[in-house]
Amino acid sequence: MQKLEKFEIRTDLALEANEQVNKSDTKLKGIIVKEDHNKKLGVLVTRLTVTNKMGEKAINKPMGNYITIESQKLASGDEEYNNQISEIIAKNILELIKEHLTKKKLSILVVGLGNRDVTPDSLGPDVVDNIFIDRHYNEEGDIVLSGMVPGVMAQTGMETAEIIKGIVNEAKPDIVIAIDALAARNSSRLNTTVQLSDKGIHPGSGVGNHRTGITQETIGVPVIAIGVPTVIDAPTIVNDTMENLIKAFSTSKELQGLVKTLSDFTPTEKYNLIKEIISPEMADMYVTPKDVDATIKRIGYTLSDAINIAAGKK
Amino acid sequence: MQKLEKFEIRTDLALEANEQVNKSDTKLKGIIVKEDHNKKLGVLVTRLTVTNKMGEKAINKPMGNYITIESQKLASGDEEYNNQISEIIAKNILELIKEHLTKKKLSILVVGLGNRDVTPDSLGPDVVDNIFIDRHYNEEGDIVLSGMVPGVMAQTGMETAEIIKGIVNEAKPDIVIAIDALAARNSSRLNTTVQLSDKGIHPGSGVGNHRTGITQETIGVPVIAIGVPTVIDAPTIVNDTMENLIKAFSTSKELQGLVKTLSDFTPTEKYNLIKEIISPEMADMYVTPKDVDATIKRIGYTLSDAINIAAGKK
Amino acid sequence: MQKLEKFEIRTDLALEANEQVNKSDTKLKGIIVKEDHNKKLGVLVTRLTVTNKMGEKAINKPMGNYITIESQKLASGDEEYNNQISEIIAKNILELIKEHLTKKKLSILVVGLGNRDVTPDSLGPDVVDNIFIDRHYNEEGDIVLSGMVPGVMAQTGMETAEIIKGIVNEAKPDIVIAIDALAARNSSRLNTTVQLSDKGIHPGSGVGNHRTGITQETIGVPVIAIGVPTVIDAPTIVNDTMENLIKAFSTSKELQGLVKTLSDFTPTEKYNLIKEIISPEMADMYVTPKDVDATIKRIGYTLSDAINIAAGKK
Amino acid sequence: MQKLEKFEIRTDLALEANEQVNKSDTKLKGIIVKEDHNKKLGVLVTRLTVTNKMGEKAINKPMGNYITIESQKLASGDEEYNNQISEIIAKNILELIKEHLTKKKLSILVVGLGNRDVTPDSLGPDVVDNIFIDRHYNEEGDIVLSGMVPGVMAQTGMETAEIIKGIVNEAKPDIVIAIDALAARNSSRLNTTVQLSDKGIHPGSGVGNHRTGITQETIGVPVIAIGVPTVIDAPTIVNDTMENLIKAFSTSKELQGLVKTLSDFTPTEKYNLIKEIISPEMADMYVTPKDVDATIKRIGYTLSDAINIAAGKK
Repeated sequence: MQKLEKFEIRTDLALEANEQVNKSDTKLKGIIVKEDHNKKLGVLVTRLTVTNKMGEKAINKPMGNYITIESQKLASGDEEYNNQISEIIAKNILELIKEHLTKKKLSILVVGLGNRDVTPDSLGPDVVDNIFIDRHYNEEGDIVLSGMVPGVMAQTGMETAEIIKGIVNEAKPDIVIAIDALAARNSSRLNTTVQLSDKGIHPGSGVGNHRTGITQETIGVPVIAIGVPTVIDAPTIVNDTMENLIKAFSTSKELQGLVKTLSDFTPTEKYNLIKEIISPEMADMYVTPKDVDATIKRIGYTLSDAINIAAGKK
Repeated sequence: MQKLEKFEIRTDLALEANEQVNKSDTKLKGIIVKEDHNKKLGVLVTRLTVTNKMGEKAINKPMGNYITIESQKLASGDEEYNNQISEIIAKNILELIKEHLTKKKLSILVVGLGNRDVTPDSLGPDVVDNIFIDRHYNEEGDIVLSGMVPGVMAQTGMETAEIIKGIVNEAKPDIVIAIDALAARNSSRLNTTVQLSDKGIHPGSGVGNHRTGITQETIGVPVIAIGVPTVIDAPTIVNDTMENLIKAFSTSKELQGLVKTLSDFTPTEKYNLIKEIISPEMADMYVTPKDVDATIKRIGYTLSDAINIAAGKK
Repeated sequence: MQKLEKFEIRTDLALEANEQVNKSDTKLKGIIVKEDHNKKLGVLVTRLTVTNKMGEKAINKPMGNYITIESQKLASGDEEYNNQISEIIAKNILELIKEHLTKKKLSILVVGLGNRDVTPDSLGPDVVDNIFIDRHYNEEGDIVLSGMVPGVMAQTGMETAEIIKGIVNEAKPDIVIAIDALAARNSSRLNTTVQLSDKGIHPGSGVGNHRTGITQETIGVPVIAIGVPTVIDAPTIVNDTMENLIKAFSTSKELQGLVKTLSDFTPTEKYNLIKEIISPEMADMYVTPKDVDATIKRIGYTLSDAINIAAGKK
Repeated sequence: MQKLEKFEIRTDLALEANEQVNKSDTKLKGIIVKEDHNKKLGVLVTRLTVTNKMGEKAINKPMGNYITIESQKLASGDEEYNNQISEIIAKNILELIKEHLTKKKLSILVVGLGNRDVTPDSLGPDVVDNIFIDRHYNEEGDIVLSGMVPGVMAQTGMETAEIIKGIVNEAKPDIVIAIDALAARNSSRLNTTVQLSDKGIHPGSGVGNHRTGITQETIGVPVIAIGVPTVIDAPTIVNDTMENLIKAFSTSKELQGLVKTLSDFTPTEKYNLIKEIISPEMADMYVTPKDVDATIKRIGYTLSDAINIAAGKK
């Protein structure tokens, strides 16, 4: 068995990375967290800022702002509820791009990452389909929107970052907003969490696993990333079940050994252990609920509405 | 922990059910199995017939014929290979309907079960999209084809069996061929196995879990079922990983207890144990490969071709 | 040239049929028309009732209620405007089914007619995709909704009426609401008119030309038809151009003959003349705007919202 | 009425442009035409080369090669027939790119122009969906393929040429093959004609009317254009009907004037006359057959097969 790297924490959500770290190192510097709880809506907004290299190393995310919006009803609320969530997301998008809002006419390119033909990975394309695109005729607006669905490498034969960089070079938007479906590392986050970040999309993220990052460094303009976990990482489901098994067996004398052994592992170590023993072909699998079509439609609509609101289109 | 029912074997594949049984009861009567190995193509065709009540009880499948066609390259072969597989499937479809072929004009209704909007569950609708439908104008053919995509209950609010029965009553086909995506209970069967049966689709089968069976009893005409596992049942992936874990730990003295305890379980008992401790929300989840769109397209084409060939349309 | 039948008026819109008739016969009995103009929204609601056989014969529509809702902004209004139109349509749906509303639990089957794969004909399927289906779990609601997309004959090999009748026999809804895309006989009606009727869909209607009617007589329960012209009939576009040509040429002495000849024709006679001389293959063609995808999406959403509102789902 | 420009011939097909010209100027220089008739298949291949400025001016097409493949059964043949057509198209694609075939590893980007959501305009996207993309993993092939569906301006807010140019700059293919659905100017060409050209796509071409050309000049690498008329231009249908009307009326004394007047017009003048008197909103309309979904699927498959064959993928 390969030696487990102590800090090799792999999750697309900064919040989750931070939770894992806190358990072993509570006096972490370089990470500021502010929570804002809207009890009426049942929404928790967490603003996490990575301020220095120490913070970067601790949670394995680059310096920048990470806003997490959590709601148990993200995929199941009624239309009015969704509208209120859209308003909250819109406000937070504006917060992340506020320094650019002074520009007379801000041109935003919305990129829908993922594979349109694989339901849980179609969130990004779905969002772009519902954006009020107006770059080609809007003469006056403060913000003009363009949109793009680059496809995935199996469809195009090209790196997604390559495609976006090329288009950015020609169309010269001021900012890119990239929407992506993520693989949750914790079942409870599935379809309940939206992460906004001003640091783009990093390699290995997303249901479709982008090989190259989509960041200001790779494409040339700032990238606001909007990610929602819509599938669960296969090892996660095994790990969660294992925990249940250990609890169930913890009174059995014969199994004390296993319980003791596994109790010594940190969550990360346990996850990595599972990842090693899971069948290799499972690495390319994900776990998805049966009603994923309805979920994606709902969340996609909430996100496109949020972007339309932020851009003053509705 | 709920007491495990000895014979509660739940798999859509008769072959798999039979494998599990053989281990505990080798002198099984009422089940006849014939294998036909095409080494050149790497295809194994297994004809399993349940001939009496004892057989029915043993593998929990009604009396009838179950033909399993296995090929590792079902989803990855080239066009020529797929054509040969289509020919083999076509021949076996004809075998299952041979008693009806004496009819002057045989009317077959092809029903694509599953949800068109959820990629791994869209196999049935995909197949129907590529069938050469000719019931409405073919005056002469020996076999005429009609087709139907009934949708799933979340889309229609109706039982699929209700919809099919109604249409059968009006359109009066002689036979229904129902195509369905299945949830594999064994990862190695994923996208490698086609099961044909002359006994229809049973409750609880399929990615989308039909509540009522689609059988001659419920819809009024014989039902040939064609099923392909396109997703893996969530407990299966945990179970498989567990086996790997136990193997890895089997030399550890501390874990002898666990190994011993689990070794006493039959595969069915182990699967049911996992199913109990898996988080309840996982019951509605399935595991799917990332490139499921390409796989479904390929297998769907192979199956629609098989039906078109069997019906003399190409 | 075949003799033109005097009263062979062929349009799916009762309002249009009535307009054509009025010109030659102003004292028509058996037809009652009431207009209701909402100037603020720019919406004209016309309630036309055919009360006896004379009315039936005059406009070639069976006795019943025909409500036409006209708005120039049906496909181009903003979300708030669309919501208001949905409310108006909902109110009129309820008016047409008011006698059934006394039933304790009213079961409505919404049928999306047309071909999902041909954009202007996909209005019906689009509407059903956005209906809040709840027949399978709603225990309490006053109205429960089920939904169905039967497909077109080229896809199924079966008459649409056959399919619907079969499903109605099994699922036993109290009413069917059938949504269909129509071919306009007047370019100004394209995407601006919604017709509701309590007399179902008649043969030859719709973009896809249903061969059999979908009416209480053919399927067994009352049918509320909702139709929107989304394409233009090919002869219409020729006819309209011809009129322009005649106007342009009316001052030319040489062409006085043509002008005079054509002036003697009623609109119906002119249309039928065009229909005869148009190339035969054009009979299966329709004229559609280039941005038909956006139009269908918008109108589909407005209609599904209307049905959801009428059924108390939002 | 605006004065009609003598040479303003507007058709995407060089062959059609050439036909119109021949009538008035039979000794045209600068245009070489070679016909190759495969009687067994009923296929006519016409190779038209524009060799100098005189030719350019005559048919309003830039110097280059234009290959037209005509078959009445393009959309209605069986699978075997389609395969033979694919072989013919493949051979002609190779002819147009033969000077590039000496390159060790030729990288071709296949671009599917048009709107995926409007059936007759979805030919390009359909073709790309069925190309064997291998640029991302093929280490050895002589030809590697990448693919892209850029969308239309209403969806992206960007010029299609802008998007393609950007991607070409990054991914550096040697050649672009651009597939586009065209608007026929002659009903008989609908779904029966494939035009290949080594001079790219010109402004105003296509169902969706590209504003900027997609040519070596605009995107930086040679562009092979493959176009198929899948809709008919609205004025064309009026014009065709008009011709029939005139024939029908030519014996009427009263209409001699009209017949005489219109007989003096060249086909181009007549078309332009119609275009002027047609209702302005009709300019954005097209005429399409009802079974356009089946047609696009069939032709799309034939073209993708042709490209796969040309690139040695099957």
